Amino acid sequence: MKLLGAVEAGGTKFVCGIGHEDGTILERVSFPTTTPEETMGQVLDYFRDKPVEAIGIGSFGPIDPIPGSPTYGHITTTPKPHWSHYNIVGTMQAAKGCKVGFDTDVNGAALGELRWGAARGLDNCLYITVGTGIGAGAALGGGLIHGLSHPEMGHILLRRHPDDTYEGICPYHGDCLEGLASGPAIVKRWGVSNGADLPPEHPAWEMEAYYLAQALMNYILILSPQKIIMGGGVMKQSQLFPLIADKLQTQLNGYIQHPSLREHIGGYIVPPGLGDNAGLAGALALAEAALRG
Amino acid sequence: MKLLGAVEAGGTKFVCGIGHEDGTILERVSFPTTTPEETMGQVLDYFRDKPVEAIGIGSFGPIDPIPGSPTYGHITTTPKPHWSHYNIVGTMQAAKGCKVGFDTDVNGAALGELRWGAARGLDNCLYITVGTGIGAGAALGGGLIHGLSHPEMGHILLRRHPDDTYEGICPYHGDCLEGLASGPAIVKRWGVSNGADLPPEHPAWEMEAYYLAQALMNYILILSPQKIIMGGGVMKQSQLFPLIADKLQTQLNGYIQHPSLREHIGGYIVPPGLGDNAGLAGALALAEAALRG
Repeated sequence: MKLLGAVEAGGTKFVCGIGHEDGTILERVSFPTTTPEETMGQVLDYFRDKPVEAIGIGSFGPIDPIPGSPTYGHITTTPKPHWSHYNIVGTMQAAKGCKVGFDTDVNGAALGELRWGAARGLDNCLYITVGTGIGAGAALGGGLIHGLSHPEMGHILLRRHPDDTYEGICPYHGDCLEGLASGPAIVKRWGVSNGADLPPEHPAWEMEAYYLAQALMNYILILSPQKIIMGGGVMKQSQLFPLIADKLQTQLNGYIQHPSLREHIGGYIVPPGLGDNAGLAGALALAEAALRG
Repeated sequence: MKLLGAVEAGGTKFVCGIGHEDGTILERVSFPTTTPEETMGQVLDYFRDKPVEAIGIGSFGPIDPIPGSPTYGHITTTPKPHWSHYNIVGTMQAAKGCKVGFDTDVNGAALGELRWGAARGLDNCLYITVGTGIGAGAALGGGLIHGLSHPEMGHILLRRHPDDTYEGICPYHGDCLEGLASGPAIVKRWGVSNGADLPPEHPAWEMEAYYLAQALMNYILILSPQKIIMGGGVMKQSQLFPLIADKLQTQLNGYIQHPSLREHIGGYIVPPGLGDNAGLAGALALAEAALRG
């Protein structure tokens, strides 16, 4: 079986690993995200003696994932210091000389969940992470969504919960989805140091579910995914899953007549089948896709 | 050049035509939508002596466009009398014996605009019609979006315009996009018999642009289309195009750094390149795709 490399490039840490084409992850290590020189130096050191046939990079964004574009393979306009306009794919290719797959972390995770995780055997799925930020990727029609660039689904506009007076935390849009429902928004709105300190019956979770259900409704109406996988730190609050399912059904109001949205909704909105490996396995899936060409 | 057939199956009329693989339409006829027996009888009569190699049907929905599904090729749960659970593809295949392409009218139109219209030469596009209802289709990655079913983008939830007290006209969701911004919603909100009677400087159009720009923002953040094509009766109000572009830029607030959304937005949100033939040419594109398999 072919050996593949995987890099989950996050804003806090880079997780690296090696694995096989069947999604097996053999080992994982992680390095703090500091400067490209330091962090990528550690990444390249890690891969130096690994005979991988391809490496997949699932990255924080925004990135340029469009082959043929002059800035293909770059992290583009991130506000993160030192990383703006960094050519991560070029650096990796120069060092390893192998094929490199490259996409957003969430596009990768969607592909990994479709290949080996909660959506295995289906044709398409949506993967959402709700944590420090909110992002989503969709695997459909055998590929990932690219157009002008990659999706930025975490920033869609929503209607406000009637009891919510919090202005929102997004520096671009204020009260977009990420502005209202990311981990930092929960912390700021409720004045706690950690959202996980709020008990499961706290109204914070009903409000959180209201926003996430509304986002899912719009994603479903636009993408029609066969399964929705929700990961990230906030979704560790497992009480959110039934709350979201209930609110989604109320909002859809029977408009889409499909058993997945009616009798079987508990199996439609699920945590990652790959658990905390969803991100790294996603990068592995990008490597595997690059290898197949 | 191969001869193809096209059927634009609408709730008011069925437009039929024949054309070539290059998008040329040679003739078009139309029949009022009454019962399946009567209307499809006229359609089949029209095609009887036409030596077409494939026929494309772009249909009002909801439909089942998923090959292999037990109800593939059916119009499914439409409230339109007589048409619920009607096997339109089966009827056509039994009569003509040729390949039949089948999708929503708006998915077809998106494909037609990508092949031969305003998005020719690009990799993907979004087509929206704003009229009696609101629907949208996306052609991307060489295909159309299918998952649980087909998209129903006209029903996404939006935030309300601060001056809007109208409750919305959608029987399922009240004030979803279609409920607030379709032609009938304009007529009801402003108490006119025809939206086209409202002068271009009437506040109705600013409000309409507010809703459509918000919808476009969400579509862009989710699908990242390279071009957005807006058709349908309401979009004959050409003053809407610059209003929508302006509001979209305000809402995005520079979040997506792409020339199409900044300097060149006038060429990004455009009327159909195929004009009033967008629907029929879309059905022709479905025929052409069916022929290619």
